Amino acid sequence: MLTDDTGRPEFPNICLKVSYDGTNFAGFQIQTGNIPTVQGVLETALSRVYKQPLRVAAAGRTDAGVHALGQVVSYQAPFYIPAGKLPPAINSLLPPEVVVWEAEEKPTQFHARFSARKKIYSYTLDRAPFPQVMKRRYTWYCRYTLNTEAISKGGAWLAGRHDFSAFRARGSSTGSAVRTLYRISVDELPGQQLLRITFEGDGFLYKMVRLMVGSLIRVGRGRLQPEDLGEALAGSQPQAAGPAAPPQGLCLEKVEY
Amino acid sequence: MLTDDTGRPEFPNICLKVSYDGTNFAGFQIQTGNIPTVQGVLETALSRVYKQPLRVAAAGRTDAGVHALGQVVSYQAPFYIPAGKLPPAINSLLPPEVVVWEAEEKPTQFHARFSARKKIYSYTLDRAPFPQVMKRRYTWYCRYTLNTEAISKGGAWLAGRHDFSAFRARGSSTGSAVRTLYRISVDELPGQQLLRITFEGDGFLYKMVRLMVGSLIRVGRGRLQPEDLGEALAGSQPQAAGPAAPPQGLCLEKVEY
Repeated sequence: MLTDDTGRPEFPNICLKVSYDGTNFAGFQIQTGNIPTVQGVLETALSRVYKQPLRVAAAGRTDAGVHALGQVVSYQAPFYIPAGKLPPAINSLLPPEVVVWEAEEKPTQFHARFSARKKIYSYTLDRAPFPQVMKRRYTWYCRYTLNTEAISKGGAWLAGRHDFSAFRARGSSTGSAVRTLYRISVDELPGQQLLRITFEGDGFLYKMVRLMVGSLIRVGRGRLQPEDLGEALAGSQPQAAGPAAPPQGLCLEKVEY
Repeated sequence: MLTDDTGRPEFPNICLKVSYDGTNFAGFQIQTGNIPTVQGVLETALSRVYKQPLRVAAAGRTDAGVHALGQVVSYQAPFYIPAGKLPPAINSLLPPEVVVWEAEEKPTQFHARFSARKKIYSYTLDRAPFPQVMKRRYTWYCRYTLNTEAISKGGAWLAGRHDFSAFRARGSSTGSAVRTLYRISVDELPGQQLLRITFEGDGFLYKMVRLMVGSLIRVGRGRLQPEDLGEALAGSQPQAAGPAAPPQGLCLEKVEY
């Protein structure tokens, strides 16, 4: 517990780790109108816990239909509640698709979004001969024959520090598109008939992961060469970027600080 | 292809293997009124494929909210369509929660229900510290501390040929309750924080698996002794049977003929 000079608890900065099934949400970010968002249900639950309106900041504003296992959210608490008591109290007020699985007090300067150093997203493809009904909400069923070695080679062209303008949704904000993609890994999940592509980076542009997945699948199908993704980054072959893979395969796995 | 004396194809008996996410269905069996059932959507799709009303028989009439990976369905086809063409044709007319993944021609006497020799059901428990959002529809989140060795011992009392009247839902039909449970296995799924109890038997009474799971979890919590399940079967301790575990953890894995 943080205390002020008199030994009384300060109003702490709280960090929550949150998982959710994004299927039935119009994305993380709150919207006007009666539209279900993860931020909306979290803020409603927190406002009931603290008995006053409360806003949260999130590490990644996931899109409609996108899931999270390790979303991170922070807020300035209006009064002290021991961190260990927060998850059960908040979860009892959340729909079952959203679960707070950790709460921690943080120094005042901590901010879920601005303090994030690294984010890990996964994208999962269902590779079974027929769609797996219990994976349907969390995978892209992709019936094409895929060359996973070519996908890995394509990923190698995307990894590194680049201007990712080609892999940013049109109409999104206009700040710098320079990001560092530390790692892309391509893994068949043993015994599950799933293929997972994992992206570790210092930040991601709007729809960047889904656009990269779209390109990588074209590489896997032999419609693009791995090096075309380097050309897309360089700007000489913009049509090699995308189209965006569907949202339900995407999951915010983890945020590191 | 089966042919009659003149070499023309007989109207074949077709066997389908079907998987479904039972969350949004009121069970397998068709009901009057506008109630969503797996049999209803299958018969609607088949009636469109064959352009005439058609009824199917199923190996196991799973309850509302119960899933299947290997449900088996059979019907007498009104005319010949090559088995290999059936799954894509039927799937294109089914909601995405129901998938036909195999079709086969069978001798006339084959019947999905009456010819079944063995059925395998699984029941999956979520054992993570907080509910896993992507497993929620397919598991029972069970926060209790469980002694899995005691659960296995309880299962050993249930295995074998017994009168399972104690593990039949009240008000269900009154035929013989003698069934053979060949095997109960209790497995922690590595890296998934899931516990799976698998039941192999020659047949199961209405709600029998869920009532057995309810008892086994009471054994795992130390509220019952493993041998109490033997007493429940013998009729001397009927209160040791049940309560029925919730439907969403149950899955019809496979039917053998």
